[in-house]
Amino acid sequence: MSAENLDTPIFYEQLEDLEYDFEDVEMELLRQQAKLTKDLYAKREKLVADIPNFWPLVFEQSPPDIDEYIQPSDAALLLGSLKSLSVDRFELPGGDPRSVVIKFEFFENDHFENTTLEKKFWYRRAKDGWAGLVSEPVDIQWKADKDLTGGMLGLARKVWEEEKAGKTDETEAKKKLKEQMDSTGLGGVSFFAWFGFRGRDVSAEEDREAFKIEQERRQARKEGKEVEDEEDDDDDDDDDDEYELEIFPTADDLAVAISEDLWPGAIKYFTQAQEQDAMSDMDFESDEDMDEADGEKKKDQKK
Amino acid sequence: MSAENLDTPIFYEQLEDLEYDFEDVEMELLRQQAKLTKDLYAKREKLVADIPNFWPLVFEQSPPDIDEYIQPSDAALLLGSLKSLSVDRFELPGGDPRSVVIKFEFFENDHFENTTLEKKFWYRRAKDGWAGLVSEPVDIQWKADKDLTGGMLGLARKVWEEEKAGKTDETEAKKKLKEQMDSTGLGGVSFFAWFGFRGRDVSAEEDREAFKIEQERRQARKEGKEVEDEEDDDDDDDDDDEYELEIFPTADDLAVAISEDLWPGAIKYFTQAQEQDAMSDMDFESDEDMDEADGEKKKDQKK
Repeated sequence: MSAENLDTPIFYEQLEDLEYDFEDVEMELLRQQAKLTKDLYAKREKLVADIPNFWPLVFEQSPPDIDEYIQPSDAALLLGSLKSLSVDRFELPGGDPRSVVIKFEFFENDHFENTTLEKKFWYRRAKDGWAGLVSEPVDIQWKADKDLTGGMLGLARKVWEEEKAGKTDETEAKKKLKEQMDSTGLGGVSFFAWFGFRGRDVSAEEDREAFKIEQERRQARKEGKEVEDEEDDDDDDDDDDEYELEIFPTADDLAVAISEDLWPGAIKYFTQAQEQDAMSDMDFESDEDMDEADGEKKKDQKK
Repeated sequence: MSAENLDTPIFYEQLEDLEYDFEDVEMELLRQQAKLTKDLYAKREKLVADIPNFWPLVFEQSPPDIDEYIQPSDAALLLGSLKSLSVDRFELPGGDPRSVVIKFEFFENDHFENTTLEKKFWYRRAKDGWAGLVSEPVDIQWKADKDLTGGMLGLARKVWEEEKAGKTDETEAKKKLKEQMDSTGLGGVSFFAWFGFRGRDVSAEEDREAFKIEQERRQARKEGKEVEDEEDDDDDDDDDDEYELEIFPTADDLAVAISEDLWPGAIKYFTQAQEQDAMSDMDFESDEDMDEADGEKKKDQKK
């Protein structure tokens, strides 16, 4: 299929502007959603606090894009010690509704001293046009020989602190982290390495400037003025560097999956867990019953 | 993990009520979304009408849960003849925002006489607690020997008409349809068989009654009154019967995927198609460029 008429960039500009308008609506809807569900989430928190193992059972039923990151040893820890989970769009009402903080609370456990682990993701724009979630590595106080990340999380945090202090050259911690990452298969990384994610290095200041530039460009185009093209991503190489020491590169996707699926769908996942429990206790009278139960499950998952 | 404290049904009732409250918010947000995006979709329709092959390119880039249903012969027809697609939540503003009508417009083509194919899905509740999308089979005026469903769609429509006329026994059309379905592998069914979907036989009247019963039950529970349990789905067998002659059993999922992903994301999918086109025209200078392009694509797909 040819695209001969599409060399005129005017189409692209108009489509791009329209996408920005749709994005504005999405942001408005996220704000509305946060407002309309606030009391319901508070009610849910109170209600599920009395249900033993509510959150562990939710995690046990988590969808594939979350479940794939939970190793057997992570699952044992979560099932045994997770007390509660909460998600908050902390930049609301004034700021970006896509920024989220995800908070895990734990009972006393064999693996770490922390009772709360909190990871904050800021939605930021870079001057080259990129936009997405960035974060800071959170350290976990592992008990002796109980570090599920095999030391990687601590090193990631250390490297970050070194860089903040201005040490940009190769340090001992960087070298060790690279070695660790090379020797750990990608499929074997603990869920808890997620707390080490940083993403692109975009400061709040750069975000503000990039946002302003974007708004001005949109405004100018709306007024029919000629607008210079965004600088093209010629410095993409920087990205590669930044991802080089990322111990959980898809942590931002996982954060979105938790905030937009696991957290809002918790009652649904918990109910599924209960049904499964009931099923495995049941004496199966006939194969037909099994088929029915499967059919029902499939339908239940539909919205 | 045990669930010993959970035999008290009170938790389930409260969780269920809370889920209804969350559902109300979702409905309200869908209504808001329809209102806030109405003008933007109208603007998009006007804009893309001038872009050759916009909708075919969108379908070419459709996500796996849509793409898996598009057979090579379907793709050829869509790529060559699809003029436009539109989705409308036709029961708004007063009715259920989950009811959708999906309309395909076609240029003159070798396969059928129709220039418009429209499929309506009503969101309905049954008295046994089930809720979901139901529809009516749409017939397509195939040209001689050009029926991509091999006659199944016409038969599905005929069976539906017979049943509406009160013929509940085994007819010639039913027998032929069953034979056809048995001889067609599930993986080989045409995308156009989707127009034959019926779903559960829930009338508008049953929906109204079921909705009323549900509202009354919720209200009573809110007032702290004892409420009788919903009848349990003892007549699940009916479901099996109804799905027996369904030539595209997951048509409702596909309708949701089109309405909530392909339709709102059309500009994104079109842009992807253009980028891919540009990529395949490009002389690759080095492997590094490829890696970068991949990386960018991955990031672009993120929200």
